Amino acid sequence: MSSNNIILGANQYGKAEVRLVKITRDTDRHEIEDLNVTSELRGDFEAAHLEGDNAHVVPTDTQKNTVYAFAREGVGSPEKFLLRLAEHFTSSFDWVDGGRWAAESYNWDRIQADGSEHNHSFVKNGTETRTAVVVKDGDDVQVMGGLKGLTVLKSTQSGFEGYPKDKYTTLAETSDRIMSTDVAARWRYNTTDVDFNNAYDDVKALLLEGFTENYSTALQNTLYGMGKKVLEAHPEIDEIKFSMPNKHHFLVDLAPFGLDNPNEVFFAADRPYGLIEATVLREDASDAGRAWEGIAGFC
Amino acid sequence: MSSNNIILGANQYGKAEVRLVKITRDTDRHEIEDLNVTSELRGDFEAAHLEGDNAHVVPTDTQKNTVYAFAREGVGSPEKFLLRLAEHFTSSFDWVDGGRWAAESYNWDRIQADGSEHNHSFVKNGTETRTAVVVKDGDDVQVMGGLKGLTVLKSTQSGFEGYPKDKYTTLAETSDRIMSTDVAARWRYNTTDVDFNNAYDDVKALLLEGFTENYSTALQNTLYGMGKKVLEAHPEIDEIKFSMPNKHHFLVDLAPFGLDNPNEVFFAADRPYGLIEATVLREDASDAGRAWEGIAGFC
Amino acid sequence: MSSNNIILGANQYGKAEVRLVKITRDTDRHEIEDLNVTSELRGDFEAAHLEGDNAHVVPTDTQKNTVYAFAREGVGSPEKFLLRLAEHFTSSFDWVDGGRWAAESYNWDRIQADGSEHNHSFVKNGTETRTAVVVKDGDDVQVMGGLKGLTVLKSTQSGFEGYPKDKYTTLAETSDRIMSTDVAARWRYNTTDVDFNNAYDDVKALLLEGFTENYSTALQNTLYGMGKKVLEAHPEIDEIKFSMPNKHHFLVDLAPFGLDNPNEVFFAADRPYGLIEATVLREDASDAGRAWEGIAGFC
Amino acid sequence: MSSNNIILGANQYGKAEVRLVKITRDTDRHEIEDLNVTSELRGDFEAAHLEGDNAHVVPTDTQKNTVYAFAREGVGSPEKFLLRLAEHFTSSFDWVDGGRWAAESYNWDRIQADGSEHNHSFVKNGTETRTAVVVKDGDDVQVMGGLKGLTVLKSTQSGFEGYPKDKYTTLAETSDRIMSTDVAARWRYNTTDVDFNNAYDDVKALLLEGFTENYSTALQNTLYGMGKKVLEAHPEIDEIKFSMPNKHHFLVDLAPFGLDNPNEVFFAADRPYGLIEATVLREDASDAGRAWEGIAGFC
Repeated sequence: MSSNNIILGANQYGKAEVRLVKITRDTDRHEIEDLNVTSELRGDFEAAHLEGDNAHVVPTDTQKNTVYAFAREGVGSPEKFLLRLAEHFTSSFDWVDGGRWAAESYNWDRIQADGSEHNHSFVKNGTETRTAVVVKDGDDVQVMGGLKGLTVLKSTQSGFEGYPKDKYTTLAETSDRIMSTDVAARWRYNTTDVDFNNAYDDVKALLLEGFTENYSTALQNTLYGMGKKVLEAHPEIDEIKFSMPNKHHFLVDLAPFGLDNPNEVFFAADRPYGLIEATVLREDASDAGRAWEGIAGFC
Repeated sequence: MSSNNIILGANQYGKAEVRLVKITRDTDRHEIEDLNVTSELRGDFEAAHLEGDNAHVVPTDTQKNTVYAFAREGVGSPEKFLLRLAEHFTSSFDWVDGGRWAAESYNWDRIQADGSEHNHSFVKNGTETRTAVVVKDGDDVQVMGGLKGLTVLKSTQSGFEGYPKDKYTTLAETSDRIMSTDVAARWRYNTTDVDFNNAYDDVKALLLEGFTENYSTALQNTLYGMGKKVLEAHPEIDEIKFSMPNKHHFLVDLAPFGLDNPNEVFFAADRPYGLIEATVLREDASDAGRAWEGIAGFC
Repeated sequence: MSSNNIILGANQYGKAEVRLVKITRDTDRHEIEDLNVTSELRGDFEAAHLEGDNAHVVPTDTQKNTVYAFAREGVGSPEKFLLRLAEHFTSSFDWVDGGRWAAESYNWDRIQADGSEHNHSFVKNGTETRTAVVVKDGDDVQVMGGLKGLTVLKSTQSGFEGYPKDKYTTLAETSDRIMSTDVAARWRYNTTDVDFNNAYDDVKALLLEGFTENYSTALQNTLYGMGKKVLEAHPEIDEIKFSMPNKHHFLVDLAPFGLDNPNEVFFAADRPYGLIEATVLREDASDAGRAWEGIAGFC
Repeated sequence: MSSNNIILGANQYGKAEVRLVKITRDTDRHEIEDLNVTSELRGDFEAAHLEGDNAHVVPTDTQKNTVYAFAREGVGSPEKFLLRLAEHFTSSFDWVDGGRWAAESYNWDRIQADGSEHNHSFVKNGTETRTAVVVKDGDDVQVMGGLKGLTVLKSTQSGFEGYPKDKYTTLAETSDRIMSTDVAARWRYNTTDVDFNNAYDDVKALLLEGFTENYSTALQNTLYGMGKKVLEAHPEIDEIKFSMPNKHHFLVDLAPFGLDNPNEVFFAADRPYGLIEATVLREDASDAGRAWEGIAGFC
């Protein structure tokens, strides 16, 4: 029989989606950093929940102010900025023993004008969104880089064959189809001593390159190749997780109109879509702790 | 030093967002069930990732077909429907030992025409979205009901005082403010022997009622009260998790225009927002297993 | 040959999406009004565009402030509120001779608690969004009520037959299908002397009722019937425009699985969709002036 | 008194958002064209609305099929493709005397792999969406190129001063602020004899360059300069319309934390936002006919 002793379990709280734009203008050639920052604290907040005693509740408004105040000294990289926030909150309040700090960041390119890059005019590059997460749990600190919305497509060198058939199978095998996905990936560093901006650029380039390589027998196969490529080149990364839709492009049947269709005209479908999620990691990867909790869509 | 032995970790795959509308038309008074179903399988899929061997890869297209074929016999409740899918996939394929099945469902009301409810004409009720998840891991089966997008607001009987101040604190204390949130909740059943539709309706009513009760000292306090209320009334539920934004409504300063503003005119802000996440559970709750993995925004 | 004499054409500017929540708390039973207001001015703004002279540019920030200040005296109905704004701006600034004021408004229901409606706790009713527009052009004032996102579905009493066939036609005729749409409608009043809230409620009810009536030969046919019903009951309305998607629900072929499907199991498709747009009006409707300019998706 | 003689007014219908991906694979170096096409017909459809007679209703499904069949011969440019559709429908059906055909198109870049551009692997470039519209009304044909979602930002060389003040004005004047907008522009060609792809690339480059030039006294001033630049360089364009939000970046007050903020740390706000809409055109621009009807957000 169920106990009626009701208790508080895992909890965290903070300020979400603090939109921060930092302009560095030491010289005429300005730099822009554009982030969406979320700060969530973990620790002893039981009295606030059970008794309405807010003595431990660092206001979410204060967390927002802290983000802006810390930005005055610059951002540098999303990961370094989140590490500073994590250190600040856990060292400033006795009852805060951990938390989760996350950021999206958006890329801007310099506008080309009169044949050269402009000093203070930028155009947003919507190719993908960079993500970063820092999770602190007592002395354990985890840093995850990542990206989402990196949409890629191969117009050939992809097939799907040799799968099991049952009474509900109607799919035809093919050795030439379009493969397309929105890459969402999160990689876990095994150290904080990293040039995170350089690492990001290189991992992104490897993911793109990995997508192009080899005939793809299935999105699973391509995913694994992409992950392996990253881990082999980056000893500072222990683990990478992917959540990737298989964005179906269906060949349109033009026969009723007296036309052939040799893999030229496709209907790009919205829903449903395949969804492939997997982790690629080192056999001796460090303990992930609570790093992956609450990340949407990653198994 | 990092090992270069790269392996496959946790993984799952399937078909996401299968949009299913089921009309039951045994009599002139039709019934409608409207769902968005996702099926993801877990098991031995290593060869597909590492060697390009698809012999174990039940196509996501087959998973979609199965959803539609099973719907021919009716849906009943999202939870029961997902349990049928879970049972089917794990019993049909040796190498599939678990998975995750999820559904959103949308409410429709009968249109009122000529003073009575129409037999076969419906209007979508956008108040909230119902969610259901079944996670199977070998013999362990977990069922989670839930809802999201249930937006509520109290125009008084809410304050925030007694919080700690530091050098980054600028927030003023108040004993009368608007409190508003989008309730997202997931509750875990300790049995599958439940009338899930009735349970859903009752939990929703309790959450709404819990939101109205008592002066709120903080959203944390209100959240806990809502969860406790549900667990006390429903012995078949062991645990409930919330992820709730504090949707700020800022009092507009009308003094520059020679006007007072006694809590009447507010600016409803989009971002940033507070974010409060917590679990309320029985002290002797059953083991959650992998129930909560990968649920966005829940700690 | 093209002239190189470049000039300024039609223009307007203002503040968009001012999120206003007004609580009326004269008694313990509070009332809530929740709007998203846009104010755009028209007039002589040439110097601002051509010469960088802002002497005529009433700041969009001032327009926002005015919205909040005017709300201090109450909203009443979106249409009346926009009429007050229109009168204010055109009478306050010589060079402003017109403009466009628009609002979305959101419905809130009282939460049921302990068997009765709560005094100050509300739940958002997401069924549809109400829209209102006021266009002023010198002495001409046009008021348009409207709604969007009113999603309806008939599970029978709808077909599509008797259409022309050409070499690109593959569609099969049917006399029993699902018909579903998101009703978006805008109706133009021929007077400002209207109880706009009552008119809104009644028009919405008539649209729903009109959707249920009669066998539908096509969405065009149903649309016309809905519009006619509104105009016949409301002499204060001269014209109503609709933009309605035909939300396709495709019958799933279950034959490969040995199952029949007598209009029971459907796939609800996202894109593409049919799109039906039409105006129903009185033969002697008043001149619409610039009422309909720039309304998305209405022909 | 209002007439009860109810009639059908302006109307159009068709298939919206036909998602078309065309791969050209004549050589190993594949080309990709990715469009979202909408086809709407105008003409004599009264009987369908009033009497339920579908003899004139070319099915929206047929319109979709036609889009795919025509794509078999290639797309070329969105504008040329829409012109082919317009010609086809108006010449194939006596009672169709016009219509509106529209497309969004999405850019893909070749993936860089091993130092060179890949032959058949692409990454979506999310910088902006290209838009095209063809409106045919009897013999009159209008072609509009366009783009949306081109987000730009200047970190200096922008101010706002010299505006009128009234009792609702609280805004402070500034000669150094961030200016940011999402450029949405539509330009009307005065001929169909255009290399539309080249014209698009050049107009986009001019808009970006125009945004960078000169100190901006207001977004109106910058908008006009951008439009003038396009018309001066492109004699085949008669008119250009803009709808541009003023995306506010508010300087954060860091003084309470003992910090200055010399235009370095900003809060990027979502709502409300300024909204500036204007037309720049030649003094002797050709008649626009029905070209601009129903384009959202353009006055």
